Amino acid sequence: MIPIGVSNRHIHLKREDLDQLFGEGYQLTTAKELSQPGEFAANETVRVIGPKGEFPAVRILGPLRKFTQLEISKTDSFSLGVKAPLRASGKIAGTPGIKLVGQKGELEIQEGVIVAERHIHMTQADAAKYNVKDGDYVSVKSAGERSLVFNKVLIRVKDSYALDMHIDTDEANAAGLRTGDQVEIMK
Amino acid sequence: MIPIGVSNRHIHLKREDLDQLFGEGYQLTTAKELSQPGEFAANETVRVIGPKGEFPAVRILGPLRKFTQLEISKTDSFSLGVKAPLRASGKIAGTPGIKLVGQKGELEIQEGVIVAERHIHMTQADAAKYNVKDGDYVSVKSAGERSLVFNKVLIRVKDSYALDMHIDTDEANAAGLRTGDQVEIMK
Repeated sequence: MIPIGVSNRHIHLKREDLDQLFGEGYQLTTAKELSQPGEFAANETVRVIGPKGEFPAVRILGPLRKFTQLEISKTDSFSLGVKAPLRASGKIAGTPGIKLVGQKGELEIQEGVIVAERHIHMTQADAAKYNVKDGDYVSVKSAGERSLVFNKVLIRVKDSYALDMHIDTDEANAAGLRTGDQVEIMK
Repeated sequence: MIPIGVSNRHIHLKREDLDQLFGEGYQLTTAKELSQPGEFAANETVRVIGPKGEFPAVRILGPLRKFTQLEISKTDSFSLGVKAPLRASGKIAGTPGIKLVGQKGELEIQEGVIVAERHIHMTQADAAKYNVKDGDYVSVKSAGERSLVFNKVLIRVKDSYALDMHIDTDEANAAGLRTGDQVEIMK
């Protein structure tokens, strides 16, 4: 059984964009450690402004990355009025940009708005146990009154990962799942 | 193959509640015919006010019913701050109420806020063809980049029904489905 982690809308920032939004050399502060070792939800948030709507406080996740990436649900994409494609994390070429406002400045990113492809983080040992490898796709079954089977779930393997299946709020709500619920990889 | 109908948040009203919200004897006007024969989206909307948030214009669907029922997604339930349970249409006993505001008046309904159970409308002829009966549950497969299998899909049979699978916006967004897309009942 694999625990579920539900990802609410959030943003990853690169150094240059954090400087622009919060001031040169700004250091994020940790609100909460996340399930993946080293990852954290920051106290800091950004305002995200789309052509149709906005979110006043989107959580920044740390640590900083090499690229800025805003992860939203399809529902969010309709609220903002931005056509965010389904992408694996990091695959942001050709994706839309959006306006960000921080404590000290604002910024129009040129790309980086995605709906994240659902995925399972696991170690090499887990991968061996489930007989899968990095980049594979599997089907995953959830139980409960809104039971369903997610097809096309990406496997991501790294020895620093904790075993965790990440889905967004649309997927969680459609399946009646909450963080910590258990799901099963189908044979 | 069965066509998908995506239900956005909407409300069904009984006579007494329409009177209270829009005035004695008020007649709804038709904005758009729906896929189910006789059903329509009205031009009229109501403001829905929950403990945490509100929606300024929730579409009324006609014709009038014997009970008032507000159908929202789980995402909506978090926005409103109301614990709406998953229910088949009409099974509203013990469900939460909410505040409604119309053109002429307002109203605190005592029950009727639900997340609708996904379901397929079909005729007796369709039911015979798919080898199912009213009240059965089936599994339904969707294709595409967010392909999934919905388990526990309720079958609703009536000869006045048009063949249609109704899902809410969370389910549509989680599956990457839009109204008119085709899905398949699994054997």
